[in-house]
Amino acid sequence: MTESLAKKQLILNLFEMNCVGHITHGLWRLPHNHRSEYKDLAYWLELARLAESGGFDAIFIADVLGAYDVYGDSPAPALLEGIQAPNNDPMLVVPAMAAVTEHLGFGITFSTSYEPPFAFARRMSTLDHLTKGRVGWNVVTSYLPNAARNFGLDAEIPKAERYARAAEYLDVLYKLWEGSWEDDAVVALPEADGLEPGSGVYTDPAKVHAIDHEGAHFRVAGPHLSEPSPQRTPVLFLATASPDGVEQAARNAEVVFTGGPAVKAVGAATRAAAVEAGRSADDVSFIVQAGVVTGRTDEEVAEKLALYRSFASAQGKLVHRSVPFDALSHPKDRTVREALEIEGRLDHPGAASLPLDITVGQLVDGVDEAWGGTFFVAGTPTVVVDAIERWLDEEGIDGINLRQYHSFDTLRDFVELIVPELRRRGRVREGYTPGETLRERLTGGGPRLPETHPAAAYRRTAAEA
Amino acid sequence: MTESLAKKQLILNLFEMNCVGHITHGLWRLPHNHRSEYKDLAYWLELARLAESGGFDAIFIADVLGAYDVYGDSPAPALLEGIQAPNNDPMLVVPAMAAVTEHLGFGITFSTSYEPPFAFARRMSTLDHLTKGRVGWNVVTSYLPNAARNFGLDAEIPKAERYARAAEYLDVLYKLWEGSWEDDAVVALPEADGLEPGSGVYTDPAKVHAIDHEGAHFRVAGPHLSEPSPQRTPVLFLATASPDGVEQAARNAEVVFTGGPAVKAVGAATRAAAVEAGRSADDVSFIVQAGVVTGRTDEEVAEKLALYRSFASAQGKLVHRSVPFDALSHPKDRTVREALEIEGRLDHPGAASLPLDITVGQLVDGVDEAWGGTFFVAGTPTVVVDAIERWLDEEGIDGINLRQYHSFDTLRDFVELIVPELRRRGRVREGYTPGETLRERLTGGGPRLPETHPAAAYRRTAAEA
Repeated sequence: MTESLAKKQLILNLFEMNCVGHITHGLWRLPHNHRSEYKDLAYWLELARLAESGGFDAIFIADVLGAYDVYGDSPAPALLEGIQAPNNDPMLVVPAMAAVTEHLGFGITFSTSYEPPFAFARRMSTLDHLTKGRVGWNVVTSYLPNAARNFGLDAEIPKAERYARAAEYLDVLYKLWEGSWEDDAVVALPEADGLEPGSGVYTDPAKVHAIDHEGAHFRVAGPHLSEPSPQRTPVLFLATASPDGVEQAARNAEVVFTGGPAVKAVGAATRAAAVEAGRSADDVSFIVQAGVVTGRTDEEVAEKLALYRSFASAQGKLVHRSVPFDALSHPKDRTVREALEIEGRLDHPGAASLPLDITVGQLVDGVDEAWGGTFFVAGTPTVVVDAIERWLDEEGIDGINLRQYHSFDTLRDFVELIVPELRRRGRVREGYTPGETLRERLTGGGPRLPETHPAAAYRRTAAEA
Repeated sequence: MTESLAKKQLILNLFEMNCVGHITHGLWRLPHNHRSEYKDLAYWLELARLAESGGFDAIFIADVLGAYDVYGDSPAPALLEGIQAPNNDPMLVVPAMAAVTEHLGFGITFSTSYEPPFAFARRMSTLDHLTKGRVGWNVVTSYLPNAARNFGLDAEIPKAERYARAAEYLDVLYKLWEGSWEDDAVVALPEADGLEPGSGVYTDPAKVHAIDHEGAHFRVAGPHLSEPSPQRTPVLFLATASPDGVEQAARNAEVVFTGGPAVKAVGAATRAAAVEAGRSADDVSFIVQAGVVTGRTDEEVAEKLALYRSFASAQGKLVHRSVPFDALSHPKDRTVREALEIEGRLDHPGAASLPLDITVGQLVDGVDEAWGGTFFVAGTPTVVVDAIERWLDEEGIDGINLRQYHSFDTLRDFVELIVPELRRRGRVREGYTPGETLRERLTGGGPRLPETHPAAAYRRTAAEA
């Protein structure tokens, strides 16, 4: 036990999205897959109960605010195969899941680019109240051109401006969440507590403050409408692998959602930048999207993997990656550059992020993150947990967002086969601590952001108040 | 039975708000009142179960996006007594209530003034999916100066512009909800239905349309992100008693939430304007906020009423009405005009809606809508239902939003004492019809807006598609 306590514990999230086809394109069509029931409450209630039965930390819910329409110059391919379209709001499934669970957390993706901060601040405070401190926010800035056009713009906001806007957005939220209401502002003394009729005070107004924010992008008066919730600021997730993202993550994130071959480098750079920003290197954790296909025997694993792969959509991957040409129509030995030239698309904004000198075949058939790469494993429980331990100890990650191939088989397999083995090896705790907030569970600290976090600067001390 | 079927049926909603002090100011302090638990899921789950056990049509949830800060030139009086501040988001309690009910509807207040229509459209579609067609939208344009300042403006948007903006907002939503996805756009044929791997189609892209809205206030490309929900457009509630409101209600509302002495006139004017706009006079129903204090005996009623009134806050009413002077500090026989003059506030925008020639005493002590007026009754069940029948048959209303004095006593009293008597008299149905949407229940029509509604103009016929 002493030895196992010293081991790094796995942050264990389920990766979800309120849509039929999230990240394993084509697989919604698998027999007995419940993904097309994403519109029903029953789907989410079953998912939440199952995740909590397996001790998951949270369900992490992705989101996009537009349709993928670069591949094929149209949303048609995305719609045809249900690639993240249609989709529904990620936040509204949380209260229902909270009603049937006690401990499970919820990470909600929300973009700082299109909606006003004041309304979002209240929504997250509401959720933090309703869940008693079980919510996190996955801070994103959006990148789909169609999303921009759905919110009155001609095209996506340039990256630098999106990030500047996000930085100010976060400041506004920190002021509302941390600075507007003092801890003891709510008095809430009804007569039942012995006062006379008429003397009841709900709030001490001297302890509630306007924020009067005036910035380049936002003007927000305040005060915050919600009284302080258990965590005040929800747990801050931030998804990034790019240098711009690293700086913002280092300043703000408690958990960085990253991936790709450069995970170690992103981790080291982010921790260094966090220290630079006055935080501790340990204030930031790193999670990756991971794929696990498991079973009781090697044969079962192989069969399952073969079945899953047989439903995978090659076109789905191209849609999701916004590949700006019809890669499936070119000979496989043509280079990506040649194909783009033939289609007159070398200058397309979407071409900038493509590897130009590989062949089209390599692009199409190359390692799909859903089926390979560092954070994928197919095997019996021992093999899987060996891999997860390697990810924790050698790749330097702290946790995973578990990709789903089949709902609910992927989750059920993980709960029944992998979690017991992880517990045997001391990599996940035996159970939940009653009353613990998501932040306490993920960071080992208190329910609120530590003093080293920039949001803490907006708190009012008793002396200032 | 035949006779009772011909009687006008009561639309029965519970009036709520996600805050400690909604409309019966001061009463959160009553012994055993659960209102200060508004932050807890348990409060909302209990409320929903109780309302459904009594056959209520819906819980109608009010909202404001700022603090009342005209009275006392500060939000302090509102905060002190918990007058609609602090408050939490109204939409986020709905999925949890939906998870523990099957039939109960939910009317959600949302303002067209501050948040982008595209995100709201998806939120309501999501709720309509999750509830299987049990949601309504209470369309408001907001009026609190502080709300405007929370969303980047200097002061509230002038009324005419608010209404113009609301009209376009509704158009955008109608295009997204009714026009973007054809009824048979979702095909959703997985292999389980007999197709080969790879052949599954989720959506027929030819039946999904961008809306490409370009207007004075909004530019929205689309397509809508959500697939068609049971009702598509949620049931449209619209709160108004003013002439500007009547026109918008006549064009759009299915249920008008009105009040005051002019209910009949508003009803007649709205129905006439609805016919003018090409709709039927019967396409619009009228509900009012109503107060009911009841008990098994006259003594019980009198005791309850006296107890409730002893906790009522006079200042709360002035805060809520945004009275722009300290009415409680003036002699009672001074006129409102004189008091305003003394305070140099005759020109205050808030003075425009005050009756200037009554005395301050009349203003302060005058009939509080919470305790009197046309749609208030205190009495045993027979007395109460006599009054409700009068409201239906003589005042011309179709239903009520039941004001709460005490949570959950007001609702429990109504369910246990009033609903049985209403059923005996054929004024509410015996139970719910399984699978019925809120629209079907409230309007007697189909699950979707009738063809006479302006939103129907955005639907695509097979020929156009």
